[in-house]
Amino acid sequence: MKIEKISELTTNRLSIYLRCLNEVAAEGTSTVSSEHLAHRFHLNSAQIRKDLACFGEFGVRGVGYYVENLREHLTKILGLDNQHRVCIIGAGRLGTALTDYYGFSQTNFKVAALFDADKEKIGKKVGDVEVFDIKDFARVVKKDKIDVAVIAVPAEYAQSVLEKVSKSGIKAVMNFAPAPLRVSEDIKLKTIDLTTSLESLSYFLAQPRNENSKAAKASGKVSRK
Amino acid sequence: MKIEKISELTTNRLSIYLRCLNEVAAEGTSTVSSEHLAHRFHLNSAQIRKDLACFGEFGVRGVGYYVENLREHLTKILGLDNQHRVCIIGAGRLGTALTDYYGFSQTNFKVAALFDADKEKIGKKVGDVEVFDIKDFARVVKKDKIDVAVIAVPAEYAQSVLEKVSKSGIKAVMNFAPAPLRVSEDIKLKTIDLTTSLESLSYFLAQPRNENSKAAKASGKVSRK
Repeated sequence: MKIEKISELTTNRLSIYLRCLNEVAAEGTSTVSSEHLAHRFHLNSAQIRKDLACFGEFGVRGVGYYVENLREHLTKILGLDNQHRVCIIGAGRLGTALTDYYGFSQTNFKVAALFDADKEKIGKKVGDVEVFDIKDFARVVKKDKIDVAVIAVPAEYAQSVLEKVSKSGIKAVMNFAPAPLRVSEDIKLKTIDLTTSLESLSYFLAQPRNENSKAAKASGKVSRK
Repeated sequence: MKIEKISELTTNRLSIYLRCLNEVAAEGTSTVSSEHLAHRFHLNSAQIRKDLACFGEFGVRGVGYYVENLREHLTKILGLDNQHRVCIIGAGRLGTALTDYYGFSQTNFKVAALFDADKEKIGKKVGDVEVFDIKDFARVVKKDKIDVAVIAVPAEYAQSVLEKVSKSGIKAVMNFAPAPLRVSEDIKLKTIDLTTSLESLSYFLAQPRNENSKAAKASGKVSRK
C-alpha cells in the first residue's frame, strides 16, 4: 500500500463509500457492484474501482464487493476501528451544539471534554460532558486520552488555542474559527469556514446568470456537488 | 472583468482578504501593502496581487491599497453590499445553533425563517426567528424574499428538501446533511460535510508518522492550512 500518495480527495471519497455501504448493509444486502453503488448514490463507478484499488483487491469478478468485508476494510483504512476521543474548545453556542452532534458518535468519535475560559461555564455539563477550565487543558487531555481537538472559539483566540493544542501532543484538529491559522506540518488541521462558504454563495448570486446555466436548466441537466 | 473565469478558490481568498482588511480597518489603518497583509495574516503577497488584479487595478504604486476603498470593492464583488435573507430547514440542534450563528450577521446574511415538519416545533421561535411548517415553504420564501437556503435535516430527507428548495426559485444552498445530492446546474450548492472532515482526521491519525513530518517538526517549519 502506497499510503503516502493517497490524496485527501480520495480519502474523502472513501468516507462517502463507507456511508453508502452502511446504507446498503442496513437493508440486508450482502454483495454490491460498483455500478450499482454509482447508480444509486450518484457516484462514478470507474472512480470507485480506482479508489478502492489503491488499498487492495476487494472486488470479485461476477460478484462485485462483499458489503461487510468492504465495510470492515474501509473502517480500518479510515482509522475508525478505534474510537477517537474529542475535546471541544469553546463552550459557546457552536461548541455546545457540536457536543450534541450525532455525527460524532456515528463515526466512532466520542466527545470527552469541553473547555472554556469563562468561570460561569466551567464545571457545568452539556449533556454528560463537563466543561473544564482551559488552564487545565494539558492535564485533562492526557488523563482523558484525547486525540482530536475541535476549535470553536472566536477568530482572535484561535491561534493561541491552536498552540495550546499543539503543545498537548494532539495531532488532529478541526477548526471552526474563521481565521487563517499557522500549524506545524505534523498536525492535521481541517478548517470549516462557514463565512467563506456563505460568501461564495453570495458571490454566485451576485453574478448575472449566464447562458450555460440557462441551457442546463432547459435541458434538465444535473450535477453532483 | 472576466467574471466567469474566476474560480471558487479565488473568491474564497477574496473572502479572507476582506476579513483581514476589516481587522486592519478596525485599527484605523488607511493604507496597507500586499506584503504587510501577507506577513501579518500568513498569506502570499504575490497571490494577493494576482487575485485582486482579476477585478481591477486597486493598488497604488508606493502606497499599496487604500483600505476603505478595497473593502468597498471586495464587498461589492462578493455581493455583500445587499443583504441576503436565509432560511434554515430543520429546526433540530444544528438548525437552531445555526440560527444564532453570529457569522451570518457579520457577513450581511439575515436568518429570516426556520422550517420543520414536526408539529411540536412549528409556531415556536428561536430568538426572533419563527419556525414555519415545511408545507408552507414556497409561500414563506416568496413573502419573506428569501434567497439562500440552509439544509440541516437528516441525510435521508436532504434530497427531497433540496428539490423543494429548487422549485421555490432559491439559487444558493448550503447543505449540512452528509448525503451526496443532485442539483441542477443553475443552483449553487455548498456542502459542509463534517463527517467526511472527521474521517479525514481519523485517516491521518491512523497513518504511521512519516519522515517528512518528523523533519518538519524538528525544523519548526509551519504551513498555513
